[in-house]
Amino acid sequence: MSAVLTPQHPSTMADSADRSGLPRALVEWLSNILGDRFTTNAAVCLEHGSDESAYEPCPPQAVAFPGSTNEVALIVQACVAHRVPVIPFGIGSSIEGHLLAVHGGVSIDMSRMNQVIEVRAEDLTAKVQAGVTREALNKALAHTGFFFSVDPGANATIGGMVATAASGTNTVRYGTMRDNVLSLTVVTPQGQVIRTARRARKSSAGYCLTQLFTGSEGTLGIITEVVVKLHPQPEAIAAAVVHFPSVGAAVDTVIQAIQLGVPLARAELLDAMTIKAVNLHSRTTLAVEPTLFLEFSGSTAQVEEQSAALQSLVEDNGGGDFQWATRPEERSRLWTPRHHAYFACLQLRPGCRSFTTDACVPISVLAECLTETVADIQASGLQAPVFGHVGDGNFHCLLLVDPGNPEEVKTAEAVSERLMRRAIRYDGTCSGEHGVGLHKMPYLEEEHGAATVDVMRRIKRALDPLNIMNPGKVVHVQVGAA
Amino acid sequence: MSAVLTPQHPSTMADSADRSGLPRALVEWLSNILGDRFTTNAAVCLEHGSDESAYEPCPPQAVAFPGSTNEVALIVQACVAHRVPVIPFGIGSSIEGHLLAVHGGVSIDMSRMNQVIEVRAEDLTAKVQAGVTREALNKALAHTGFFFSVDPGANATIGGMVATAASGTNTVRYGTMRDNVLSLTVVTPQGQVIRTARRARKSSAGYCLTQLFTGSEGTLGIITEVVVKLHPQPEAIAAAVVHFPSVGAAVDTVIQAIQLGVPLARAELLDAMTIKAVNLHSRTTLAVEPTLFLEFSGSTAQVEEQSAALQSLVEDNGGGDFQWATRPEERSRLWTPRHHAYFACLQLRPGCRSFTTDACVPISVLAECLTETVADIQASGLQAPVFGHVGDGNFHCLLLVDPGNPEEVKTAEAVSERLMRRAIRYDGTCSGEHGVGLHKMPYLEEEHGAATVDVMRRIKRALDPLNIMNPGKVVHVQVGAA
Repeated sequence: MSAVLTPQHPSTMADSADRSGLPRALVEWLSNILGDRFTTNAAVCLEHGSDESAYEPCPPQAVAFPGSTNEVALIVQACVAHRVPVIPFGIGSSIEGHLLAVHGGVSIDMSRMNQVIEVRAEDLTAKVQAGVTREALNKALAHTGFFFSVDPGANATIGGMVATAASGTNTVRYGTMRDNVLSLTVVTPQGQVIRTARRARKSSAGYCLTQLFTGSEGTLGIITEVVVKLHPQPEAIAAAVVHFPSVGAAVDTVIQAIQLGVPLARAELLDAMTIKAVNLHSRTTLAVEPTLFLEFSGSTAQVEEQSAALQSLVEDNGGGDFQWATRPEERSRLWTPRHHAYFACLQLRPGCRSFTTDACVPISVLAECLTETVADIQASGLQAPVFGHVGDGNFHCLLLVDPGNPEEVKTAEAVSERLMRRAIRYDGTCSGEHGVGLHKMPYLEEEHGAATVDVMRRIKRALDPLNIMNPGKVVHVQVGAA
Repeated sequence: MSAVLTPQHPSTMADSADRSGLPRALVEWLSNILGDRFTTNAAVCLEHGSDESAYEPCPPQAVAFPGSTNEVALIVQACVAHRVPVIPFGIGSSIEGHLLAVHGGVSIDMSRMNQVIEVRAEDLTAKVQAGVTREALNKALAHTGFFFSVDPGANATIGGMVATAASGTNTVRYGTMRDNVLSLTVVTPQGQVIRTARRARKSSAGYCLTQLFTGSEGTLGIITEVVVKLHPQPEAIAAAVVHFPSVGAAVDTVIQAIQLGVPLARAELLDAMTIKAVNLHSRTTLAVEPTLFLEFSGSTAQVEEQSAALQSLVEDNGGGDFQWATRPEERSRLWTPRHHAYFACLQLRPGCRSFTTDACVPISVLAECLTETVADIQASGLQAPVFGHVGDGNFHCLLLVDPGNPEEVKTAEAVSERLMRRAIRYDGTCSGEHGVGLHKMPYLEEEHGAATVDVMRRIKRALDPLNIMNPGKVVHVQVGAA
């Protein structure tokens, strides 16, 4: 380690602090390096300490806007020297409090690192800076014949999606972020730049740092560049909306399709309340029943074959009232209610905030877990639409609460807690795709056991001994504890 | 940590050592627990210190045959207390020296942990003990309609395949071991039993220990149970063998198919020398030319469509002379030469040993890398058949040498070294699927950079501070070094 890393105890900085509370020397140094791309402006800080969750903002003391991996390394080196936390910021779409600066520090906003560095069509890979959004990447790929598959609800940055191991509606076919990341460039807590892997499609050369940093939520290092996998644009796509007498019937249809090896491109479940919400929001007239939004892709013949196989399963399970779409604009119209479901649900109760859950269970117990959860919500008196990625066993309840009503907030927290415990009891996870952040930390030990969390803590302490990287998230560690 | 983990300095044990050199107290304790499933017999030790590589055996001091995860934990706890290394042993098919006891210690033979614990067809998962072989697992699945996809050359154990992040001929379609492991039970270097994940298909709940232990080669813990993903048996399968004027033409055919999204089930390249070897070994009369062994699977219509698409690409690339097979016994006969390629090649030169290489590069540069490599082999005067998994960019050269001829051994090592550097230069890896073991350690830093290997070393030291788990493999660490 170089001299720049020598830790300086916070108490020694007190009398040389800036208005922001940061050491004056650090503020001067970062201002020198970054000019107006470093700020302690309160409004900018507040914006960088607010996310999409139901929780209160917690602003950082300053925000830096680096333009390169090298600048990120310089920022980290300076912050480490002053023992000041760094918190990476993608686009602010976290719903688990990932970017809240609970120990103060500098937010590193990646929005200026928004270049698609290289598209390698022959290898089905693209290299991007971490601040590229998924929509921007797909726009850059528009005429290549390839696309990037992972599509969480928000137009998140690729770096943020790596950091939370995100997934989305395409995951049933193309996998999560974990399946679509080949290699990462990371600034370590020592301020060094590393590459986790080369560009071969597979490797057994040492510990898999790519997957260790994927899902590490900024607590082990800052992801600055990502090599992602691309997929060929399918020749044909068909979309369908179909209604079911029960959530169980809809889930069974999808499970049976997966067991038969029908390669579903998407399989999204919306419960009756979500349908009510999207009808109001998107002016659609869908039957207010449990509904699957499906997509098939491949060659024209494959799509026809898959559609026919699914149609027969739907009938077996008592579903029906198919609406089909094949042309791009029709498909887009058919899927619009699903894409707007989150915001449509929030509008069921204007002024509300949503406690959004993220349980994921083995698909064989999904219907059971869903049914119990809906009964629990009904008993609680809360309004809470439910939708999810059936093929992955992952579903979200939007527990809509009046933030000014502490009783309701308490009820929502209790329902959410019971759901996490229920998911764990069904051998599932409290977080299928949103990450741990601040809010799932209390359940990590219940899910994995104390000894497993101890291994995670050993890793955190080994890589980030000063606890400088997004401290207070994922696992609790004490600086200097053995 | 419990009292049993208090380290005992080796020098204090010297006068209480057993014939094996192990502390007498440890030998007595393990004999008490395991009875005749613990031995210091020289022949058994030699067998457990020999692998399939070209390198000399290096036997452990004793071998333990645990029957349960709990017994593995007891063995590890006892060995840690005496600072004696433990080396997990699957079936001994490593070709990188993984199981050589370079620092002595106790080999933990997993062959008695050979139970398929649970098959969950609805979830497409199976839970197995680490000593189950891939063939045994598929036999147990025979009538379920599902199969386990990863198929390295050897009939390896599932635990060994996790430990090396193995892959095989199905990887182009179904992925490597990384893509097919859901959760692991691991005995940590502290002798604790952990589970890395629950059984949901995806999770963002904390650091991904499943992928950290996958490919860790026994250096971070001992894998005792594995939850793997299963895949539906396809309705139809067609196999084909087709010849090409050059390696480049064969490779281009496969790349073009992948770019078009044709879901190849298998795409194996055998060079002319390998074909010569398999003709001799399997009494086939294949044209002695670069040859692809292909497989297509899916519904009958899909297989027909894929086969037609491939046939047209083959013609475009100047290939031809197709042989097709669809019925199981025909397919099996068609694929026999590929399955026997490794042993067929060894018999090109009776008494020889093989230095087997494992380069893997981005597929766009595979043909170039292969062509340079073949030229280098020819210039060296060595006999070296080449075959590989084209869709993954991974190929193996079997450098056949007379072990009694030091000049030849030196030449083979030099060719192998040049190939590793070439793969790295092409942004690939020195190990696509065999692991680092002993033999690739010198190239890890060249591949990843010193700072990346430093992160790996931090992880090793944090999880295994006494360096008790398969020491001397993957990364060098010094006990007690900061």
